[in-house]
Amino acid sequence: SASHKILLLPGDGIGPEIMAQAVKIIDWLKAERGLNVDLSEDLVGGASLAKYDVPIRDEVIAKAKVADAVLFGSVGDPAWKDVPFDRRPEVAILRLRKDLNLYANLRPAKLFDPLLSASALKPDVVRGLDLMIVRETVGGVYFGEPRGIETLPDGTKRGINTEVYTTAEIERVARVAFDLARLRSGRVCSVEKGNVMESGLLWREVVTDLHKREYSDVTLTHMLADNCAMQLVRDPRQFDVMVTGNLFGDLLSDLASMLTGSLGMLPSATLGTPVGSDKRAALYEPIHGSAPDIAGKGIANPLAQILSLAMLLRYSLERGEDAALIEQAVSDVLASGLRTADIAAAGDTPVGTEEMGAAVLKAL
Amino acid sequence: SASHKILLLPGDGIGPEIMAQAVKIIDWLKAERGLNVDLSEDLVGGASLAKYDVPIRDEVIAKAKVADAVLFGSVGDPAWKDVPFDRRPEVAILRLRKDLNLYANLRPAKLFDPLLSASALKPDVVRGLDLMIVRETVGGVYFGEPRGIETLPDGTKRGINTEVYTTAEIERVARVAFDLARLRSGRVCSVEKGNVMESGLLWREVVTDLHKREYSDVTLTHMLADNCAMQLVRDPRQFDVMVTGNLFGDLLSDLASMLTGSLGMLPSATLGTPVGSDKRAALYEPIHGSAPDIAGKGIANPLAQILSLAMLLRYSLERGEDAALIEQAVSDVLASGLRTADIAAAGDTPVGTEEMGAAVLKAL
Ligand SMILES: CC(C)[C@H](C(=O)O)[C@@H](O)C(=O)O
Ligand SMILES: CC(C)[C@H](C(=O)O)[C@@H](O)C(=O)O
Repeated sequence: SASHKILLLPGDGIGPEIMAQAVKIIDWLKAERGLNVDLSEDLVGGASLAKYDVPIRDEVIAKAKVADAVLFGSVGDPAWKDVPFDRRPEVAILRLRKDLNLYANLRPAKLFDPLLSASALKPDVVRGLDLMIVRETVGGVYFGEPRGIETLPDGTKRGINTEVYTTAEIERVARVAFDLARLRSGRVCSVEKGNVMESGLLWREVVTDLHKREYSDVTLTHMLADNCAMQLVRDPRQFDVMVTGNLFGDLLSDLASMLTGSLGMLPSATLGTPVGSDKRAALYEPIHGSAPDIAGKGIANPLAQILSLAMLLRYSLERGEDAALIEQAVSDVLASGLRTADIAAAGDTPVGTEEMGAAVLKAL
Repeated sequence: SASHKILLLPGDGIGPEIMAQAVKIIDWLKAERGLNVDLSEDLVGGASLAKYDVPIRDEVIAKAKVADAVLFGSVGDPAWKDVPFDRRPEVAILRLRKDLNLYANLRPAKLFDPLLSASALKPDVVRGLDLMIVRETVGGVYFGEPRGIETLPDGTKRGINTEVYTTAEIERVARVAFDLARLRSGRVCSVEKGNVMESGLLWREVVTDLHKREYSDVTLTHMLADNCAMQLVRDPRQFDVMVTGNLFGDLLSDLASMLTGSLGMLPSATLGTPVGSDKRAALYEPIHGSAPDIAGKGIANPLAQILSLAMLLRYSLERGEDAALIEQAVSDVLASGLRTADIAAAGDTPVGTEEMGAAVLKAL
């Protein structure tokens, strides 16, 4: 088979440590399963700032554009907290999303049965939880203009950001949610704050229209974002596919993933089509952040990164079988009782990043 | 003592039913405790739309301005979901906040011990939870200009809202949080999304500066809003006083209150100083909404409204003793096992709104 291009961007904090475990699995797939990939790796975030003085270089963006998929670690480093706004580490992921037009971020919140006790919620509330938040990622207040901080005549300041959504931006991400719902439970809940924000009102209108025109087989409901934050705590299993804007999606998907109690387990995919290209682009990354507090200690959980690789194999390389093998290996390792510190229960002796990675490899 | 002016605005849905129970307690305080108040009542929200074709009349705003305090029920009514944006029921509360310059919304999330089992969270995670979110309520994306929906040349649309915060707006609400922290645990956590939004970056700067200048005895921490949503689920008791903008405060305070499992119990206060006045204005309301699904059935929990009255007595009328009496009566009634449907456990026979109100009155 033709060689696939994968760009690895480990980033900051625990990123490089967990990426190393995913790479071992790629090596195994090459040796044992005939995977034909052309790997390249580069720096982003604080790591790139340290070497190149920018959070991401244009040539990294260019490499990402021609890659079949990007496997991303995480960015964010307190060492760079006082840099100018446009040079902060986070710009790396924001530019990748924007420049590759990765507009739909799929964030599953799935509870792994053997980890049920890790959730802060009662078992009866979260058992079997398996929802998917589709978050818009190239629009909204993250990218709207005008933006910035201006100084007023009296020397005090004014910070401004702009939330913008167009019909086209809302439609394309809603389509992803509806299509996904057809493969799942056939239900979509669209979330906005249309009782206060006109951009949310338009969001609701556009989703409603699209539903009527093309997806009337799917059940569509609407929920205000504040109510949604409550409902996710009260009874998260009422949801299957959810679709929402960039900012609400940021909060609600983090909230939803924490319901599972095992953030270190959750992968995500961000999909889109770069402008001027007919190729689908995709970036895969753990839901968790760079966790600077535990970086370099060798104790981070590599499973979200490994499961992100599985998603990459399935959705970008059409290697669903390899993906299933990896997912099964992760299940087996968990069933065998192995735990990193983040998912360890009282009494467990946690293993480190390397050991967990090696165990998955062995289970393959 | 001089007569205090209280404006009652029951609003929509369950608002009138629960307000009626609070009024009975006011009557008791007049008869038994020498409370000297001058009550007036008016329509807001859908109720006002039905009679006057506007969600709130200017004369109601004027009455609110001269009142010592407003006791508010709730607004929101699906019957008015298709009215133009500036006529929706919610405009009533938004205008009251804005026109009275009620910039600091104090939202406690306090767990009532006898209701511990009502929470979706494990008892060990939420036992004794008692945090306070100070939410900015007259700025941010709720009121920023430009805003609206415009039609593009091709007939599709564009929805716009603007998030704006100035140094002065941030400082005054942060002050409320710091002052409150001095009366509580001495800790404030400030929440924004300064890694993505310049308005959040300014928020963090201004809070940091104010802290350095005037409140260095208080412990200040900062947290990103997405992380905060997670931390509220993972370990809510790490927080005491939190301060955040209008939109994040909307989501995070609803989330926090749901952690207690008893939304029907939680009061709130919104404080400020009308421009051109030297009098402190205040509005007290339950955290829960108008609950149209159970409106008119006589089963709503009146306790959040009754506890809102207690807050009003304490903070606006300097009648802390009366407030304490009411709070004690509510505790006693809960301890006696009485439950409305929303806080009933399996096996309880829930009582209705009237019965619960009467029980509090009797316990006084
Ligand atoms: C790192 C940060 C810019 C990013 C975001 O806010 O989108 C992160 O929180 C996420 O959710 O991927
Ligand atoms: C009714 C609505 C406009 C309001 C808000 O969004 O502020 C409500 O959700 C609240 O939190 O008081």
